[in-house]
Amino acid sequence: MTEAAYDVVAIGNAIVDILAQADDAFIVQEGMTKGSMQLVFSPEEADALYAKMGPGREVSGGSAANTVAGIATLGGKCGFIGQVADDQLGQVFAHDIRASGIRYDTPVRSGAPTTARCLIFVTPDGQRTMNTFLGASQFLPEAALDRDLIANAAILYLEGYLWDPEEPRRAMRAGIDIARTAGRRVAFTLSDVFCISRHGDDFRALMADGLIDILFANENELLALCRTDDFDAAVASAAAQVPTLVVTRSEKGAIAVQDGARVEVAAEPIDRVVDTTGAGDLFAAGFLHGQAQGRDVATSLRMGAICAAEIISHYGARPEVDLKALVAQKLG
Amino acid sequence: MTEAAYDVVAIGNAIVDILAQADDAFIVQEGMTKGSMQLVFSPEEADALYAKMGPGREVSGGSAANTVAGIATLGGKCGFIGQVADDQLGQVFAHDIRASGIRYDTPVRSGAPTTARCLIFVTPDGQRTMNTFLGASQFLPEAALDRDLIANAAILYLEGYLWDPEEPRRAMRAGIDIARTAGRRVAFTLSDVFCISRHGDDFRALMADGLIDILFANENELLALCRTDDFDAAVASAAAQVPTLVVTRSEKGAIAVQDGARVEVAAEPIDRVVDTTGAGDLFAAGFLHGQAQGRDVATSLRMGAICAAEIISHYGARPEVDLKALVAQKLG
Repeated sequence: MTEAAYDVVAIGNAIVDILAQADDAFIVQEGMTKGSMQLVFSPEEADALYAKMGPGREVSGGSAANTVAGIATLGGKCGFIGQVADDQLGQVFAHDIRASGIRYDTPVRSGAPTTARCLIFVTPDGQRTMNTFLGASQFLPEAALDRDLIANAAILYLEGYLWDPEEPRRAMRAGIDIARTAGRRVAFTLSDVFCISRHGDDFRALMADGLIDILFANENELLALCRTDDFDAAVASAAAQVPTLVVTRSEKGAIAVQDGARVEVAAEPIDRVVDTTGAGDLFAAGFLHGQAQGRDVATSLRMGAICAAEIISHYGARPEVDLKALVAQKLG
Repeated sequence: MTEAAYDVVAIGNAIVDILAQADDAFIVQEGMTKGSMQLVFSPEEADALYAKMGPGREVSGGSAANTVAGIATLGGKCGFIGQVADDQLGQVFAHDIRASGIRYDTPVRSGAPTTARCLIFVTPDGQRTMNTFLGASQFLPEAALDRDLIANAAILYLEGYLWDPEEPRRAMRAGIDIARTAGRRVAFTLSDVFCISRHGDDFRALMADGLIDILFANENELLALCRTDDFDAAVASAAAQVPTLVVTRSEKGAIAVQDGARVEVAAEPIDRVVDTTGAGDLFAAGFLHGQAQGRDVATSLRMGAICAAEIISHYGARPEVDLKALVAQKLG
């Protein structure tokens, strides 16, 4: 196994987020589950929902893309694989990820549908409720994978969201093969409880087969994955199957279990939660970068907490400050 | 003259801003004038500059559009006239302005060029340096004016930026005729020193002809308009030709002269200037809404200062908070 040229290469949805404020009554009225992500299947449905949104702001998103953007801002070397369409939002996504210093060469898809959009309603408590039109993103073919890029990354990072559509799921399975054949590690984020309700069997099988080295989950996702209401039992169960387990718990902080040892970290203090979009993605960025730098688990968790605190202090899931400097300052 | 159904109708550029951080060295290296606006004439030139930008965020912009968005958020009734192309950024602009509660019916322009984009580089001091590709916006034809809308607005608001391209200039002159024939008032913002260097004679003629009722300028623009280095002399000279003159002076606050009486207001205190984009536009929004509500000049200036302080506390030139509630709270 040769030295890896990249710290992390991610396969994920290539999405532009459209973020607007909304009140709780709107979330209820539209039948959305607050804090969750639901798919919007047709462009017409997406347009109809967009017409009900307040004035927005557009920021590149996509869960795994946010994570590699965070790692790149921390100083890590990253690549991204995800598919956009030949349109203005696709140009915005490609620009932003490349401008973050990330290698991004996935061919643009011609014709309909458009680049993926995520309509994000942010309530006064800062919670985000997401409605994703997957567009071109859901047709990422296995043929679009850059095999050399994956084989040359220390970690392949995958998002559970992309497990839903068939073609990317096949591509991600192929990606896992490439990474493992090259002796690399695979990290996986469960993304959302709805992903687990649809694909929990797949996720549990990946773990049982020893294909996941680092698993990211929030508390609810972990409970759903382990089919229990007992948090400690869930942690023990999942930790028995993955070398590294990271569980984020919002204001309760986060825990990690690595090779049997459990470590906890408190949430970073923050003046005001503006928008929680990307909190988990940036937590993963901080943690993975800490691990890539050879930091211990406690420090890696703290780095995750610092990055998550930055991202929820403003709208959008891409960092607005120099995370490298911020982490250096906070770690002292 | 009938009661006006609208408080303010604006004619302006229909632009989506792309905002990214940059350091001062970049501004110098690219030969830009910090704090200014320059036009980017070809799509290729715009793409080349975009490729040099850091990761961005997109927020609807356009000077006069920002002003009516502010007034609408304050509770005023507004309309907007400006032209986008049939593309995704055009959809974003149209969505955002309508979602602010503003009447916007200008027909979409087919074919090239694209919707206008403004590439905004924000330096660590919060100053913004703008590079505008005017796209479809610069071809706003007189035929696109909604004459009834203009005739039914208490104030027609025009931006100096749009004086540059020929077709919109003709449209704005027609707009002034419609407004004055209907017995309405005309407000004009000088926009940028470069506009005055190119069209100062036109602006001075409009004033001399008594066609401007309310003139907005910052300090440098006023000095350029009046061809002097003496601020008080410039104020006296301009105030002699317009019933209401409003001059913003950044951290030095603002002054207004109405019917010969001069009033000053301090700048609103603010924790951190993030991005000055839209400061003047939102100052105008607060002032005009105060005047529409029958407030005195001092209170109208204070409302302008409050709105400007909100907009420079975050990226983008569209309000992120309920300005109506903010102003009510600050005025006590």
